[in-house]
Amino acid sequence: MSLQVFLRLAVSLAIVLGSFSSIAAAAPSKRIVTPDAVPVQTAVNQAVPFDPVAPAQPEKGKVVNFTLEAIRAKLEVSPGVVKEVWTFNGQVPAPTLRVNQGDTVHFTLVNRDPDMVHGLDFHAGQMDMGTYHKPIKPGESVSFDWKAEYPGVFYYHCSADPVIMHIANGMFGAVIVDPPGYKPEGKEYVLIQSEWYEHSTNLQALLEESPQAIAFNGVAAQYVDKPLTADPGEKVRFYFVNAGINHFSAFHVIGTIFDQVMLDGNPKNTLYGVQTVAVPPGGAVVSDLYADTGTYAILTHSMKDAMKGGLGILKVGKPTGTASAQTGSQPLTNSSASASTSTNESADSGKAVEGNVVHIANFTFSPDTITVTAGTKVIWINDEGSAHSIVGDTFDSRNEKKDGFIKGESFSYTFAQPGTYKYHCSFHPFMTGTVIVK
Amino acid sequence: MSLQVFLRLAVSLAIVLGSFSSIAAAAPSKRIVTPDAVPVQTAVNQAVPFDPVAPAQPEKGKVVNFTLEAIRAKLEVSPGVVKEVWTFNGQVPAPTLRVNQGDTVHFTLVNRDPDMVHGLDFHAGQMDMGTYHKPIKPGESVSFDWKAEYPGVFYYHCSADPVIMHIANGMFGAVIVDPPGYKPEGKEYVLIQSEWYEHSTNLQALLEESPQAIAFNGVAAQYVDKPLTADPGEKVRFYFVNAGINHFSAFHVIGTIFDQVMLDGNPKNTLYGVQTVAVPPGGAVVSDLYADTGTYAILTHSMKDAMKGGLGILKVGKPTGTASAQTGSQPLTNSSASASTSTNESADSGKAVEGNVVHIANFTFSPDTITVTAGTKVIWINDEGSAHSIVGDTFDSRNEKKDGFIKGESFSYTFAQPGTYKYHCSFHPFMTGTVIVK
Amino acid sequence: MSLQVFLRLAVSLAIVLGSFSSIAAAAPSKRIVTPDAVPVQTAVNQAVPFDPVAPAQPEKGKVVNFTLEAIRAKLEVSPGVVKEVWTFNGQVPAPTLRVNQGDTVHFTLVNRDPDMVHGLDFHAGQMDMGTYHKPIKPGESVSFDWKAEYPGVFYYHCSADPVIMHIANGMFGAVIVDPPGYKPEGKEYVLIQSEWYEHSTNLQALLEESPQAIAFNGVAAQYVDKPLTADPGEKVRFYFVNAGINHFSAFHVIGTIFDQVMLDGNPKNTLYGVQTVAVPPGGAVVSDLYADTGTYAILTHSMKDAMKGGLGILKVGKPTGTASAQTGSQPLTNSSASASTSTNESADSGKAVEGNVVHIANFTFSPDTITVTAGTKVIWINDEGSAHSIVGDTFDSRNEKKDGFIKGESFSYTFAQPGTYKYHCSFHPFMTGTVIVK
Repeated sequence: MSLQVFLRLAVSLAIVLGSFSSIAAAAPSKRIVTPDAVPVQTAVNQAVPFDPVAPAQPEKGKVVNFTLEAIRAKLEVSPGVVKEVWTFNGQVPAPTLRVNQGDTVHFTLVNRDPDMVHGLDFHAGQMDMGTYHKPIKPGESVSFDWKAEYPGVFYYHCSADPVIMHIANGMFGAVIVDPPGYKPEGKEYVLIQSEWYEHSTNLQALLEESPQAIAFNGVAAQYVDKPLTADPGEKVRFYFVNAGINHFSAFHVIGTIFDQVMLDGNPKNTLYGVQTVAVPPGGAVVSDLYADTGTYAILTHSMKDAMKGGLGILKVGKPTGTASAQTGSQPLTNSSASASTSTNESADSGKAVEGNVVHIANFTFSPDTITVTAGTKVIWINDEGSAHSIVGDTFDSRNEKKDGFIKGESFSYTFAQPGTYKYHCSFHPFMTGTVIVK
Repeated sequence: MSLQVFLRLAVSLAIVLGSFSSIAAAAPSKRIVTPDAVPVQTAVNQAVPFDPVAPAQPEKGKVVNFTLEAIRAKLEVSPGVVKEVWTFNGQVPAPTLRVNQGDTVHFTLVNRDPDMVHGLDFHAGQMDMGTYHKPIKPGESVSFDWKAEYPGVFYYHCSADPVIMHIANGMFGAVIVDPPGYKPEGKEYVLIQSEWYEHSTNLQALLEESPQAIAFNGVAAQYVDKPLTADPGEKVRFYFVNAGINHFSAFHVIGTIFDQVMLDGNPKNTLYGVQTVAVPPGGAVVSDLYADTGTYAILTHSMKDAMKGGLGILKVGKPTGTASAQTGSQPLTNSSASASTSTNESADSGKAVEGNVVHIANFTFSPDTITVTAGTKVIWINDEGSAHSIVGDTFDSRNEKKDGFIKGESFSYTFAQPGTYKYHCSFHPFMTGTVIVK
Repeated sequence: MSLQVFLRLAVSLAIVLGSFSSIAAAAPSKRIVTPDAVPVQTAVNQAVPFDPVAPAQPEKGKVVNFTLEAIRAKLEVSPGVVKEVWTFNGQVPAPTLRVNQGDTVHFTLVNRDPDMVHGLDFHAGQMDMGTYHKPIKPGESVSFDWKAEYPGVFYYHCSADPVIMHIANGMFGAVIVDPPGYKPEGKEYVLIQSEWYEHSTNLQALLEESPQAIAFNGVAAQYVDKPLTADPGEKVRFYFVNAGINHFSAFHVIGTIFDQVMLDGNPKNTLYGVQTVAVPPGGAVVSDLYADTGTYAILTHSMKDAMKGGLGILKVGKPTGTASAQTGSQPLTNSSASASTSTNESADSGKAVEGNVVHIANFTFSPDTITVTAGTKVIWINDEGSAHSIVGDTFDSRNEKKDGFIKGESFSYTFAQPGTYKYHCSFHPFMTGTVIVK
């Protein structure tokens, strides 16, 4: 069975989803397509940052206006990886809509993308997809009303085919529907898990590749350097949506237990005392917790996905020694650095010498092989937040090398005799290096 | 670790599951194996279609007789892919059994497969697998009684080892157990998600391959062309079973919200207002919804699996412009076709000319590269339900090519000058092609 | 995007998790790190077996002392595959801790690993990971108190980075927190699902490989040969934890229905009449069942994972003919062996002859191709628990070869004419072999 079979299936769905809505197309009274509504974009700009703070609760009983503009943008989706993404309003995720249960939403979609049709599928609403999800062409706009009848948190995404590709390139967001009587308290964050694929505009690749990064709110691991925050003992609520496209999430916050989890955010679906909740792609939960002062990691406990970026930090209060978690510039154990053993040196001394220096970053010795002459002092400098050690069976003093040194510190060793000296970090045995002494 | 390790493990399970039950074998009073009960099949016929409509509720308090015959059949599991499948009663899925909670089922299995042992594992029943799940040989039959003690919807599948292979080749079905007082209303559909593998009779391949198609009720995407139907506002109930063999399902119906979801179908496990429910392989849910007139897509929101066939259509009432969803022969925007711009042409004019025609099907330009002489008019014909456009930076009029054309329409362009002209579909930028003009 | 991106993300988390805690490091009053507490291990010994029986309920209202020693050990994780694993207390999983809701745990971790830092993350507790999860160095110990505030069953695992690697190499266990008034009855088993990877100390490989074995309690399929047991009608409770690192589990017991399932073990999260429950990595459930005399298979119904070892046996009472399930040495249908047809022979006769013998084990004919001279009697000997047959289109009597023979039996056939004779097992058509007669 070749990929052609899959594509034939995709076409099958396109019978319903794929055809765009043009002026004279099916336009029921409640759905108005306006041609030439806007000029399309002529330049692709940097993406607008997504605000993870849930919007304020709107006044009840009003028609809520909500407008999304389909537009492309450039986003650094993972450290060093800038991607042209497909967005609503120039941001990934798209803006969060918040309404009260029973509210009517007057929605307008404007397609400013120069090349592609786009549409909208609100999981929070109930409507004929054959009519309301129909994509519109570049320059067009469409508007229609829908009613938020169920409380909770809901996914929304572009409805243009192939839907898998429009989601995979960034066109998704969340709708919060407050049940009657709900009063927000404490901190409320929107967190949307998604997957980035290297060849995300190639349909065949999308069906075959593994995601290369997992993101919370569009950027892999962004809340590690810029933690979400709360006050000690304060209620923290996550509106958690799994945008997929494919992976199930195992939503967990290290160091805490969810006091309550509401499946799809509906108070009738409440679980208590939950360590980890499964969230299917296309699904969502509301999770509440209370935490004391400290640092807590938010992640999918499917560890491969966490390692690819499905993780962040929640900082509660001002935890001792964790100020650096905000800046990413200093190790947590900074206060202890001065107490480190005397075999460690300040990095400055090492930096002055070239040709005999090994830098440590990204859990890697760089260079991993270094060649020096007998009698040379080799200096290892730790440039990252994790502590490392230098252990080699052929090194002559076991204790000297095992102690570990942290960011900003260095360790040195003078090689008197020619030979090949292999070593590794004892804390991370997969980190290996070699010194060749001539 | 080689595959031999896995196979050794499989053998371990075979200690319990694998040995077949022959005449003189363990035959407790309640389980009777009859040798030479039937002749085995001598020809492999076309599969019998599966009826997705849930069977009528049986009269309460009777012993329910249920007979399954293991037999092989030929099934077009995905467009153009005919597979010899292993079935019960010549159909995939096997027939749905419906009983009342507390009913006794008098079950008979007849093995008409000429070559293989088969058995049965009812998730709805509780019984010693060491006795009741034992497979029987070709030509034999076995009968025993079991009681349906828990309400809900349950998976059943062949119990012969390797079970993974018997499921992967089609031997699965569903049992509905109605709780006391339940009155069916509206439409009730059985929907079983499963996976088709290319090398499904090779155990090693089954452990290594990804599924090549995902099916609802045995055939990938079958309910796109032949939608399930309901009346506007009517209750629609899905008895949804995930037969696996491996993937978790993210069951969702586009354009609707499940009013209620019962995990494993038990009314005590009811969730409310659910957008997407996770269903593990080997598990099941009952999902109820109410929808207005319209077209709604049923799918697993794990999008890769949806694209491989885990999708279908629910048509409620007679949605405007969606008659074609029933036949698959006409685009939804048929009524708007006559309103398309004048640069589109009828496909007939294109069909008359060969050598300068590019057909569009399966989201592909075919041929993707065409060579013509200067002055030739190249004609693109759209043969599929999705709208497409032809955009090329070196083409001379932007508007002319961007408008899009639908199934049955064509677009033409006369290339006056030699050169290499690259183009793509703006609605699906991964569709690319080249015209070489000499 | 290269792996370096992933590693950079891993480093981001290391900002919080990675730095070890040394003497002078952040040591809040409640957390005491003691240097040189113990000598590190100098030899790697065989692992200590894990006891699947849940520990007895402790007296309420006491401070519970719990000590774990990080140490490496050798474990046969799957038949024939011995791995150096990273453990707590020399066992995989680590010891189960049981406390009453509200109890305070006085925890001590001793790092006897000669090379690596280790720490602890208790899902059952709530504490600043920036302080309490910090790993300690070889030879150090750390102690602190934490309180079990939520009832249920919780995962715990090493907190040293990369956490994915410390889990993947064996450092995980379970905490049971009894709610007030809970009285254990019947059998209570702890079952922890986990994954073994071939290159588990290579971070890149961990992000790319599929697991090569799935284990319940550290060893693939161990409870097939050594079943868990219960008395007929007795309550059987599973404290089921999914340690991951990645796969979701579809927890199911063949032949039974879970009477109750408590998500995360919390009685407020009770489901009823469940066939299969989804358990995310990092999550847990309590599942109760009652079964009559018989043999029942425990597995993840994600069948690929079951085939790789995610399965075991629960033996209730003394099922007829299933004594062998305990020893693995005899087929279940042993009593029927004498009733097999006369074309089967005792294996002894076959064993006396070499060069014309094909052994059957691991669902494989060995050798799969055999060359003999015309007139030779070829003997197939079944060495495993599953029944097999020998079927070949060019063999001369259909019935003679189809009957099947079980462990300890043999089948023979005399090839009179030169030729190439292909055959297979009809019960397992993927088993194929060839006899070349010269």
